[in-house]
Amino acid sequence: MKPVKHLPTRCLAGLSGLLLSLLLSACASPAATEPGPQHIVGTGDLGLVVERASGSLQLLNTSRRELLGRIEGLGDLSHASLVYSRDGAHAYVFGRDGALSKVHLPSRRLLARVQQSGNSIGGAISQDGRLVAAQNYQPGGIKVFDSVTLAEVADIPAEYAPGQRSRVVGLAELPGQRFIFSLFDAGEIWIADLSGIAAGRPPQLQKFKDVGRQPYDALITPDGRHYIAGLFGEDGLAKIDLWAAEPRVERILAGYGRGQQALPVFKMPHLRGWAVAGRHAYLPAIGRHEVMVVDTESWQEVGRIAVAGQPVFVMARPDGRQVWVNFALPDYDRVQVIDTQSRQIIQTLKPGRAVLHMEFTPRGESVWISARDDNQISVIDTASFVVQARLAAASPSGIFFTSRAQRSGF
Amino acid sequence: MKPVKHLPTRCLAGLSGLLLSLLLSACASPAATEPGPQHIVGTGDLGLVVERASGSLQLLNTSRRELLGRIEGLGDLSHASLVYSRDGAHAYVFGRDGALSKVHLPSRRLLARVQQSGNSIGGAISQDGRLVAAQNYQPGGIKVFDSVTLAEVADIPAEYAPGQRSRVVGLAELPGQRFIFSLFDAGEIWIADLSGIAAGRPPQLQKFKDVGRQPYDALITPDGRHYIAGLFGEDGLAKIDLWAAEPRVERILAGYGRGQQALPVFKMPHLRGWAVAGRHAYLPAIGRHEVMVVDTESWQEVGRIAVAGQPVFVMARPDGRQVWVNFALPDYDRVQVIDTQSRQIIQTLKPGRAVLHMEFTPRGESVWISARDDNQISVIDTASFVVQARLAAASPSGIFFTSRAQRSGF
Repeated sequence: MKPVKHLPTRCLAGLSGLLLSLLLSACASPAATEPGPQHIVGTGDLGLVVERASGSLQLLNTSRRELLGRIEGLGDLSHASLVYSRDGAHAYVFGRDGALSKVHLPSRRLLARVQQSGNSIGGAISQDGRLVAAQNYQPGGIKVFDSVTLAEVADIPAEYAPGQRSRVVGLAELPGQRFIFSLFDAGEIWIADLSGIAAGRPPQLQKFKDVGRQPYDALITPDGRHYIAGLFGEDGLAKIDLWAAEPRVERILAGYGRGQQALPVFKMPHLRGWAVAGRHAYLPAIGRHEVMVVDTESWQEVGRIAVAGQPVFVMARPDGRQVWVNFALPDYDRVQVIDTQSRQIIQTLKPGRAVLHMEFTPRGESVWISARDDNQISVIDTASFVVQARLAAASPSGIFFTSRAQRSGF
Repeated sequence: MKPVKHLPTRCLAGLSGLLLSLLLSACASPAATEPGPQHIVGTGDLGLVVERASGSLQLLNTSRRELLGRIEGLGDLSHASLVYSRDGAHAYVFGRDGALSKVHLPSRRLLARVQQSGNSIGGAISQDGRLVAAQNYQPGGIKVFDSVTLAEVADIPAEYAPGQRSRVVGLAELPGQRFIFSLFDAGEIWIADLSGIAAGRPPQLQKFKDVGRQPYDALITPDGRHYIAGLFGEDGLAKIDLWAAEPRVERILAGYGRGQQALPVFKMPHLRGWAVAGRHAYLPAIGRHEVMVVDTESWQEVGRIAVAGQPVFVMARPDGRQVWVNFALPDYDRVQVIDTQSRQIIQTLKPGRAVLHMEFTPRGESVWISARDDNQISVIDTASFVVQARLAAASPSGIFFTSRAQRSGF
């Protein structure tokens, strides 16, 4: 073992031999049938489940399909999300109570906890993994932290008029230590460039104004090219092509949004639940029992698929051949699977009461589904739809695998 | 620390507290400025460089941009490739001498080595990580091994006529413990389904015959949908749409291949070096100083880009905004960067003599490039093209990051 991060080299260099001997001597039982010593496991098949009621996380392993134990003391985890360090050993947890927590997966320890705002709603990690940003409702703005020490490196108030601060939503990382986010109260989208922070230069801000009323959430396409904000105050969405020579805001999908909907909306769908499969995006039709299909070249709607309820998450299996959908109350005991070639529902599952989230293994062979009111996680084979495992967790909501560390747009 | 793989639970459960105390007491030096103990590092930012002349591997860390040390005794590593376990802690190395080696990254140990054939040319790991397959020239066929023990679980001779065995190329994994591969001498493509192996059932074979003369390499598109084999004995390529209700072989790109080329070919390009960026594939034009652009919906050529030499690897940055190209002799000291929106060369770099391979960090901020004859790896910022690190390695060739464990088609 060679230290690869954080610890003084002389310390681990001396220890590695000792650790090795200890593990070898203690573990050389007849039950160990391995061809050689394998004492340190990798982090590539780990993940965390948010247990919202108890303020805890469950460590999981997707190879063994097991929960490995709890990390406690995370505070209010309703609507919590998290991002991972580049090496997959650490998670940064954004609690609704404004706390940013750093946990260490292999040891299941809470390493640090910073009360960084009064009310927070998620965050992001920079492309190079060095900066962690939290988006805050109260006081409105983003704060940026050193990912190793959690020292605050920047405080960017979302002050859009003298004395007026907006709630911030839709935060995502962009290449080069930049973050993009939307100002709900201001109807603006900002990009903060923190590439000068290490050299002592303040963040540079680029502001897009009049993007539309009340952007309430946003997503970035898997290639990082398009940033799309949903509008609560009017129909349509605001889109920026970040690869354009001079990026500007365009309005797309004029019929999409809250304004003209006939049905009551039981839960606003997450825009990050959009699926992009091949050249098409699959997205929840707000208030309707439909999934919309949109061409990502023209950004025009090209089809609708009738589903069992109001869709919340519409998620593509990593290969894009299937799209899985969960639903708002009262249909939130069901999950439906769309075949993207035929655009037909090929399966309806009932994995438990209050299905809140789904996460695919990185190569797509399984999906993990949380059923909050049944205190259960189901692991399902995406080819046969056979249940591979049922695991007990306390009011599970979000499920996050370390493979997210390797992907952009979170 | 909780054991997540391979070791008896009772053993590690007892050890974890001891290890923790040991590490804490030994490492609590004033130099440790971390907010908490972080003794076990993740494997998400590790990788391996093949040192072909010395039969060794160099462990690397992409966060620190450092080489961490050598793993020796791998035998003949010319044209070697490797795949990773799901957790990222182990690599399976396919040597040209027919040996399959299993190495453990955190401890930099060679754990096991199986002489499985006389001449091998790469391999793959099943979607679920349980089976490792090697493709062999001599004797021609594939052999499949348990990824934990390296016990042989299947031997599939590529016998296409009585007593006639073909060399095997273009092996890739398909969903559900299946592998696809091409038979150079037979002009066939086979799919082996090993999903019954654990229950004692033999592999099931599906054979596509008369696919074209001498398929010499193949690739699978990033979504796993299309398998494409290059033909050495004639022009064009053989493509199978694996998502079709009844997959069959189609011929595409009639002008692509060896037959009609006017220029001598200094090195046959790797088909796995094809880049798919958005809906277009960028591929080396064989024998010409050009990169071809192909629409992956129609599989028609839609453009050509003049480059500095005969392209070998044509690789997309993970976001698809750039395509990087290296070249065959005598132009193999150069690397060119294509902007995929304008299809223009935006940069020409000289990272050393005999550039053999390139590997992007999973979020694309850096690329690692091996220059064999300068015994050097360069780490380059893909936005500014600034050299972030120069690292000494012995005749480096292939570079493989553990993030490959999360992706299909290897």
